[in-house]
Amino acid sequence: MFPFTGNLADIAAHNAYSKEQILDILRSAKDNELEVIPLVQTFGHLEFALKREAFIHLREVPESPQALCPSLNRSLEFVEAMIDQVMELHTAASDVKFLHIGCDEVFQMGACTRCRSHPRDTLFLQHVRSVVGGLTRRWPRVRPLIWDDMLRHVPQRDLLDSGIGQLVDPMVWVYAEDIYRFVPTHVWDKYSSVFSTAWSASAFKGAFGETEFVPNAKRHLENNLRWLEVMTEESPKFKKGFAGIVLTGWQRYDHFAVLCELLPAAVPSLALSLMAASRGYFDAALSEAVGVALGCPSPSSPHTRLRPPIQSLISLNTDPHMWNYFGRCFFPGNSFFKLTYRLHVAEAEVKEFLEQTTRQKGWMTPYNVRHNYSAPLRVNELTADLPRLQRGLSSLARATVDALNDVCDTYTIAEWIEQRIYPDIIALEKIQSSAQALLNRKTWERRPLHPLEDLKRFGVTMP
Amino acid sequence: MFPFTGNLADIAAHNAYSKEQILDILRSAKDNELEVIPLVQTFGHLEFALKREAFIHLREVPESPQALCPSLNRSLEFVEAMIDQVMELHTAASDVKFLHIGCDEVFQMGACTRCRSHPRDTLFLQHVRSVVGGLTRRWPRVRPLIWDDMLRHVPQRDLLDSGIGQLVDPMVWVYAEDIYRFVPTHVWDKYSSVFSTAWSASAFKGAFGETEFVPNAKRHLENNLRWLEVMTEESPKFKKGFAGIVLTGWQRYDHFAVLCELLPAAVPSLALSLMAASRGYFDAALSEAVGVALGCPSPSSPHTRLRPPIQSLISLNTDPHMWNYFGRCFFPGNSFFKLTYRLHVAEAEVKEFLEQTTRQKGWMTPYNVRHNYSAPLRVNELTADLPRLQRGLSSLARATVDALNDVCDTYTIAEWIEQRIYPDIIALEKIQSSAQALLNRKTWERRPLHPLEDLKRFGVTMP
Repeated sequence: MFPFTGNLADIAAHNAYSKEQILDILRSAKDNELEVIPLVQTFGHLEFALKREAFIHLREVPESPQALCPSLNRSLEFVEAMIDQVMELHTAASDVKFLHIGCDEVFQMGACTRCRSHPRDTLFLQHVRSVVGGLTRRWPRVRPLIWDDMLRHVPQRDLLDSGIGQLVDPMVWVYAEDIYRFVPTHVWDKYSSVFSTAWSASAFKGAFGETEFVPNAKRHLENNLRWLEVMTEESPKFKKGFAGIVLTGWQRYDHFAVLCELLPAAVPSLALSLMAASRGYFDAALSEAVGVALGCPSPSSPHTRLRPPIQSLISLNTDPHMWNYFGRCFFPGNSFFKLTYRLHVAEAEVKEFLEQTTRQKGWMTPYNVRHNYSAPLRVNELTADLPRLQRGLSSLARATVDALNDVCDTYTIAEWIEQRIYPDIIALEKIQSSAQALLNRKTWERRPLHPLEDLKRFGVTMP
Repeated sequence: MFPFTGNLADIAAHNAYSKEQILDILRSAKDNELEVIPLVQTFGHLEFALKREAFIHLREVPESPQALCPSLNRSLEFVEAMIDQVMELHTAASDVKFLHIGCDEVFQMGACTRCRSHPRDTLFLQHVRSVVGGLTRRWPRVRPLIWDDMLRHVPQRDLLDSGIGQLVDPMVWVYAEDIYRFVPTHVWDKYSSVFSTAWSASAFKGAFGETEFVPNAKRHLENNLRWLEVMTEESPKFKKGFAGIVLTGWQRYDHFAVLCELLPAAVPSLALSLMAASRGYFDAALSEAVGVALGCPSPSSPHTRLRPPIQSLISLNTDPHMWNYFGRCFFPGNSFFKLTYRLHVAEAEVKEFLEQTTRQKGWMTPYNVRHNYSAPLRVNELTADLPRLQRGLSSLARATVDALNDVCDTYTIAEWIEQRIYPDIIALEKIQSSAQALLNRKTWERRPLHPLEDLKRFGVTMP
């Protein structure tokens, strides 16, 4: 969503932020004592740029826009141009101490003829060195950060020999609960022998499935609490301890994926995890404080019976999305958060309706529809609930527009509706038109419905 | 499947049995000491006839071919013609003591202008009297039977006044386990005051869902065992006790429904329930006897460890379809029974694959497909299992033809494959062609993917 210009104009989205909007965001952050760390992908996850005709020649693999070929001078020029534009705009409004240069999930490496003769680890470390070299020449006081996942399996010796420990700080990301399963003790030992510090990265949304639409607050809180334990355990190994923890909140898994949880649906999860991460623990009193901060009815208000005090920790077990607890509060974005519960109910209802109508019951299966052959009485029974379900989805789509109007741009609202609600609307419309066709018949042909010649399609031939 | 001729030729299926085939079936039954009771629907469930243009005028409701209008002389003529043809062919090969005249589930009654002024119970009882009158004039020694469901709510007084108790014997059908829930004690008291005897009807297949493909042998056995209890309890109330129990085995829920369990998939269920019904109880020894009768490896054979002796009663709890127990036996139709287990596994696998690919994961959702926009790497990952699943379904379809070749006609085999396997084959083909299209792209347009004008479809307009 960055407003790239010049040679890079083609990789900006048509609905990218304007420069003025970005400056506005940066000033707001500063006013609220938030420090912004820009992130520029420089190796993998360059889909948003490499997908374009103009940048095909920079792909590692011609069929895939995922990763950059590190063996081309023009790759580095391209990366440096991106960094330049992002840094220039950010430094115009605030002091930039860190730049995150990505480098996670480089799925294609050492595949092209230029790269094939080099070991993959060498290719990776050398590319990071080049990117950092270019950055520090022009922005010597900016400290570069990289995701750690590509380093997890690189031997300690190679890391030390590359000198990478002096160039960048790693950001170790694990969003699942069992952090040591992904980054075991021996990896921490290796990292602390190479780097003087490390960042950790947890998540408050966008980590438990590409098509989730409201975060599992319980699992994210657990992830953050486990990170606190890991940091306590591993911090002494690093010369300078941990530099900090970043609570990530992803909105897509990559450029081509559908939208996952939108920010307003994730405010409660962010509040809980941020409270835990900033205080270093979590308990009933902190959960109360989150409730107050998020405009939940207080225990002494007339709404007390709506929210028994200090129930949120218990609620997490039975209601991991915290719909019951935060569904009554008035934080920014609350109306979209509330809507996700209605969506959850509607989706389950539509799914069950489709399963019953087209698979379980015997009168509107694909066979009945294909041959337009069914019992009118049964078709009426099976579709009795259809108008109610259709009205529900339409009303949900309208409510979505209202709930997101202050939060997202029009395109994003439309994309979310198209991805989340439209497929069910289409499915119900198909049922409706099948039903109409089935009911329009007044007479029916004799069985069997297929001429024998037609049976070959199903692998049946006369003996 | 009866070869109706003359005025009724139009209601015979094109693949109806020939008269010779029916005579052959009847002679086989006689040779095996089985007595055949023909069933001719005479009121409701006349879809197979009333669906035709030629019989529209006999419908109670013009839009629905389900039920006959009982107020027309021509309705009675039509019913008598059907009975005549069925009786003539059956008496040619065997002695016919009973004729079942159906009369269940008459969903439309008293709806047309001719019928509207009469009470529904009167319409029903009067029509039964007329049908029985016609039957006994021509076949005086044949005892008519009717399903009981339309009588359950008729007041005792009306039943007695109608004299129906002298004309027909009721066949009380309940296929669920809790028989008294559907026919409570007071209904039995009423029936026994009106009729001198009654039949009961349990089921061994075709009762627990229109799209089942292998019977739940445990539930059917339970239904039969409960019937034995009910018959013991209620028999003394009837002057002549119970006339017998019929183990029904339905193949469709009505003429328009898809096929449910085919006979070869139901042989184990039939054997278990028939053993219980004919002995009056069920235990481990009888379950052994069923195993022997169905060609299961005997406990003393080298295959002993494959089937621990007397395990079938326990198996029923963990494996209600008895795949483990009877999947190793060699009864007629065993290869189709075995195939239903493969189908069960394949269907679950395909369902999970489709759920993951099109709903859970974020790169092949309807949105990605509609915009032909996804990450090639992810599309390859998501479809890695597709060829294996496709080969599995094709092999299953071929195996079905082999397994059913001796049992059903070609049309029925094709219909079953089209209903049961083809929808999954189609669904996987759709995934394959979406994947192909997604992978064919080499460059992609800038986001957002929709021109703003197009957003109105999703209810989004610029503020």
